[in-house]
Amino acid sequence: MTAVDLASWLGLRVPVLQAPMAGVQDGRLALAVAAAGGLGALPTATLGVPALREALNELRACGQPYNLNFFCHRPPVPDAAREHAWRETLATYYREADLDPAGVPAGAGRQPFDEMLAGVVEAFRPPVVSFHFGLPEPALLARVRAAGAKVLASATTVAEAQWLEARGVDAVIAQGLEAGGHRGHFLDDDLSRQLGTLALVPQVVAAVRVPVIAAGGIGDRRGVEAALALGAAAVQVGTAFLLCDEATTGPVHRSALTGRLQGIDPSHTAITNLFTGRPARGLVNRLMRERGPLDPTAPAFPLAGAALVPLRAHAEARGRADFTPLWAGQRADACRPGPAGDLVRQLAGLDPPR
Amino acid sequence: MTAVDLASWLGLRVPVLQAPMAGVQDGRLALAVAAAGGLGALPTATLGVPALREALNELRACGQPYNLNFFCHRPPVPDAAREHAWRETLATYYREADLDPAGVPAGAGRQPFDEMLAGVVEAFRPPVVSFHFGLPEPALLARVRAAGAKVLASATTVAEAQWLEARGVDAVIAQGLEAGGHRGHFLDDDLSRQLGTLALVPQVVAAVRVPVIAAGGIGDRRGVEAALALGAAAVQVGTAFLLCDEATTGPVHRSALTGRLQGIDPSHTAITNLFTGRPARGLVNRLMRERGPLDPTAPAFPLAGAALVPLRAHAEARGRADFTPLWAGQRADACRPGPAGDLVRQLAGLDPPR
Repeated sequence: MTAVDLASWLGLRVPVLQAPMAGVQDGRLALAVAAAGGLGALPTATLGVPALREALNELRACGQPYNLNFFCHRPPVPDAAREHAWRETLATYYREADLDPAGVPAGAGRQPFDEMLAGVVEAFRPPVVSFHFGLPEPALLARVRAAGAKVLASATTVAEAQWLEARGVDAVIAQGLEAGGHRGHFLDDDLSRQLGTLALVPQVVAAVRVPVIAAGGIGDRRGVEAALALGAAAVQVGTAFLLCDEATTGPVHRSALTGRLQGIDPSHTAITNLFTGRPARGLVNRLMRERGPLDPTAPAFPLAGAALVPLRAHAEARGRADFTPLWAGQRADACRPGPAGDLVRQLAGLDPPR
Repeated sequence: MTAVDLASWLGLRVPVLQAPMAGVQDGRLALAVAAAGGLGALPTATLGVPALREALNELRACGQPYNLNFFCHRPPVPDAAREHAWRETLATYYREADLDPAGVPAGAGRQPFDEMLAGVVEAFRPPVVSFHFGLPEPALLARVRAAGAKVLASATTVAEAQWLEARGVDAVIAQGLEAGGHRGHFLDDDLSRQLGTLALVPQVVAAVRVPVIAAGGIGDRRGVEAALALGAAAVQVGTAFLLCDEATTGPVHRSALTGRLQGIDPSHTAITNLFTGRPARGLVNRLMRERGPLDPTAPAFPLAGAALVPLRAHAEARGRADFTPLWAGQRADACRPGPAGDLVRQLAGLDPPR
């Protein structure tokens, strides 16, 4: 499918998808993207059901297509020994901040797609549903299809794209190594299997018959044109939206992205598992520098995050991002403040670059 | 400069540079690329002066522009303790192969650019000279310029591109993370600073005024079109030439690239320092799998290689690539047997894809 074909099939005016970004957006960003003719997305992983219902009511009312995004990881089995070791690892930071490790909350919420969320899909019938970390089990996926949603899912390798196609997804999001936030890999944990977008997209395009949406390292019109040249039918962009007026990106995250936070270089990201237990790309901060970005002792996704919550709050209250996940891809230079609709139009080549 | 501008300024008919690839090519590949209108390259790092003179005589006779490529690393200070530890690391493999560790040659030759090689440049006056790992010292660089060569050099970050531009290079080769062979980084050893080509190229294009040549993950016409869309004035392609008739790629390397070698997946590369002491991308083989691709105890570039020579020869004689550096980027799928000139024309969009 060409860019125009996929866009019109999805009901879009431009072949630009906004990447769902848990923690830095709510329905407002999705609405702004939808109003500009792109596909806005609402990430559900960190939303409670009341907030989800509220956002969905607004999105449904806008009359434009939107994408409801779910993580579909297997909930981890808590491991007391690993949790204990992780808290030992962080003990020095607790002492430094004069915080009580006993006050750490029990778990961090990243809700995987389940029966209850399938019920939400059936109730709201979102035009598009996307999955990260694979697909839900067949019975749940069948409920999503039966509710009329077009289904997208992330692939980081050719093998994952073929696996998704065999299970009937309508389009594959090929997520290159440049992308910010969580890597979507689900067939193989070996990060050396992850490919740059320029290498990944043409290989996926050659391997599957469904349309391919390119993601990772795309921040401006040039990136969109390159992705289309590689055979992608559309693009998914995340990082470039982080400073938009409608994003809920926090103050230290915004400062870090614009190079106004001491000790953070917005051009320097790394893939880290420290913040959630799963590899995700973010700006290199103090915790990543001191522990190394990948720590095999971090508790399984999403449990690693809980023990960081008090440290993060303590540091952020002092204007520091030492323990904050500063999710960003390799095009943080493309972030600009302003309305998200302007960015959508620039990515689509309708407006000149900011 | 646009693609056509840079190509004509370099005297080319098409904006396609063949990446210099020490160990898998001699002048024959460069001649074939030159005959097709691209820029052939001769890597000097592993050639002795007699072989270099012979190849240069042939290249000069062809009447087409060509690129003479040099490494410009600082020669390492030998470190007996590190060398000893490295041989201890490899001792188990020596025992398994029933080889005598005392028979290991003293050093591996990767000749950096020096007075003698500056003399070769003055004698042959190559139209283009390219450098990897930074630039030679100013007096040596001045001799290259005085000999009339246009100077290219590799950058892997925006900072490196600006550093090179400030020292007067005529064009920057922006080497993305997908590229095979040695990473060209020289300002910062931290591999997390390395960027995917799709993210790197537009940032370099925005940061420097000299033309930018995109390298890394480009294996077909789609990749070339994407690179040009990103603002590159030309592309440099390596991996896709590895199976060409004119390449000297060895038998196990060719088998590995085509998926006919047990235990090697041509779609799986990693950045490793095991073979030379410097990070370089190659297909994952036994040594990389068993030691992990990055080993901080490996001797400094290029010394790590010497102790592998007997192991490599022993394994290759048995049809195995356990200790062979199988340099390749993330588009090994783009490798096809055939004349290099055909590949140049396909990359340039003059012939349909193979």
